[in-house]
Amino acid sequence: MYCKCGKEGFYFRRHSGEILCKKCFIRSIERTVFKTIKREKLFEPNDRIMVALSGGKDSLVLLHILNKIERKYGCELFAVTIDEGVSGYREEGINISKKITQSLGIEHHILTFKEHYGYTLEEICNIASSKGIKLLGCTFCGILRRRLINKAAIIFKATTVATGHNLDDEAQTILINLIRGDVSKMIRLGVKPIKQREGFIPRVKPLRYIPEKEIAVYAYLMGFPLYEKECPYVRASLRDEIRNILNDIENRHPGTKFSIVSAADKLSTLLKDHIGEVKYCIKCGNPSGKDICRTCEILSMIGINY
Amino acid sequence: MYCKCGKEGFYFRRHSGEILCKKCFIRSIERTVFKTIKREKLFEPNDRIMVALSGGKDSLVLLHILNKIERKYGCELFAVTIDEGVSGYREEGINISKKITQSLGIEHHILTFKEHYGYTLEEICNIASSKGIKLLGCTFCGILRRRLINKAAIIFKATTVATGHNLDDEAQTILINLIRGDVSKMIRLGVKPIKQREGFIPRVKPLRYIPEKEIAVYAYLMGFPLYEKECPYVRASLRDEIRNILNDIENRHPGTKFSIVSAADKLSTLLKDHIGEVKYCIKCGNPSGKDICRTCEILSMIGINY
Repeated sequence: MYCKCGKEGFYFRRHSGEILCKKCFIRSIERTVFKTIKREKLFEPNDRIMVALSGGKDSLVLLHILNKIERKYGCELFAVTIDEGVSGYREEGINISKKITQSLGIEHHILTFKEHYGYTLEEICNIASSKGIKLLGCTFCGILRRRLINKAAIIFKATTVATGHNLDDEAQTILINLIRGDVSKMIRLGVKPIKQREGFIPRVKPLRYIPEKEIAVYAYLMGFPLYEKECPYVRASLRDEIRNILNDIENRHPGTKFSIVSAADKLSTLLKDHIGEVKYCIKCGNPSGKDICRTCEILSMIGINY
Repeated sequence: MYCKCGKEGFYFRRHSGEILCKKCFIRSIERTVFKTIKREKLFEPNDRIMVALSGGKDSLVLLHILNKIERKYGCELFAVTIDEGVSGYREEGINISKKITQSLGIEHHILTFKEHYGYTLEEICNIASSKGIKLLGCTFCGILRRRLINKAAIIFKATTVATGHNLDDEAQTILINLIRGDVSKMIRLGVKPIKQREGFIPRVKPLRYIPEKEIAVYAYLMGFPLYEKECPYVRASLRDEIRNILNDIENRHPGTKFSIVSAADKLSTLLKDHIGEVKYCIKCGNPSGKDICRTCEILSMIGINY
């Protein structure tokens, strides 16, 4: 089995039937990211792009590829790592993040939950459980991390935040929102940046059309360190169920994840006028279905005024 | 556990938390159908409604409830059963259909594939396989049955066709279309009748908001005969996979099927202007994404000009 360039095949892309050698595989990933950026106009020449860098494979690949592409166009690039304060877990990601930013010569900042919220994630989960709030650690973590990423973007004067969400993440989120009957979240997911608003820095997802598996293969080919440990807060969540279900369907029907994301894209395009009507939280400026967003609601539930 | 009317509980409706006695359960099913008809304006006072009656539980329940509701409003009601010609399977459904229509005093017609297409389903599957057409028997059956139902509606002068599609069918179809990336089919599914067009009789689904399980319970309470045999053509299809997946998710997250159908409803409402732009097949007048619909395409593939 040979690549169309004549070299020995290394990767079989089931949904397209392509066989790729290592070099053509790497090039195809980078080209997809480049095309996404161009088509969706994710960046402008003088952008100061902040990469949300956890140290996991997705954000490493994102930083690496943006460093290759965007510096050429005169964009500035820097990275921010959030330390939630999960002992025995987060240190590894922070070390990996430090190493890669040093080796690429990229500005890097670390922000902690403790310093910005007054509590580590562990402490917040304890507070919540003592107040009888039945939410998973992952829920708090996701909400508080997203909020702190936005704050970091303001502090360090980013014009855009790039996150490592991949095709699998996006397809899962679309399905979760469909299952919850949440149409507005389902169609608000597109890659196009939400218009800048007071206190809210637009976020973009350049890896949105790359399957998780291919990001892992790319990371492996680049020799990126593998983040071995699993967060102790990861529990059986709806996302886990949906991840397994989608992987099963994709195995039997290659291309399913693409189709789901492309269906949501079509809906977003058809409904772009309606998306314009999305409300914004009066407390934090984030897009929200209600006057006060879920994040601000949960923060005030656990008594964090932020 | 008691019903709110004070009688002993018989059915626990997980997604709403209600406990219902037999009488209240029956009433709640009939009321949901009535509300659906009213809200979606499915029928008008002088409609001549044709019920597509297979003899399975869904169509029996549909006929029974429409007979209770619609006759009051001056609608005419009649039933049509399609005989695909699957020996050893279809006879039972035909017998059940004859009995129920006789007992209710409802006009009943039986149309056969053999008479109208020149071939039974079995013969058509053989023709297809001899031509190397790799399609499931269920695909031919669905397409040819739908087409013959439309023809029956024209022959017997129906103004509307009512089919027994339930909540599970609808949620499955929405998910299948999402997985296939077929947005226009996903949002064209609403209960509202498609505008009447030359050669095409609008179809409505009064059971669209009733879960399959509740239809089975209603049929059991009414003492309807159970259609025991499974069609020999039923094979592992995408719909089967999706049915199992949805039942699993519904078990863990009661209300999922409702949420999915309601999400699609919201999308249909938001996109109703776009739905207006749906094309119609130039051969048969059915709604179609292309000039010639998939049905006409497949019919001409197997050499049936209909």
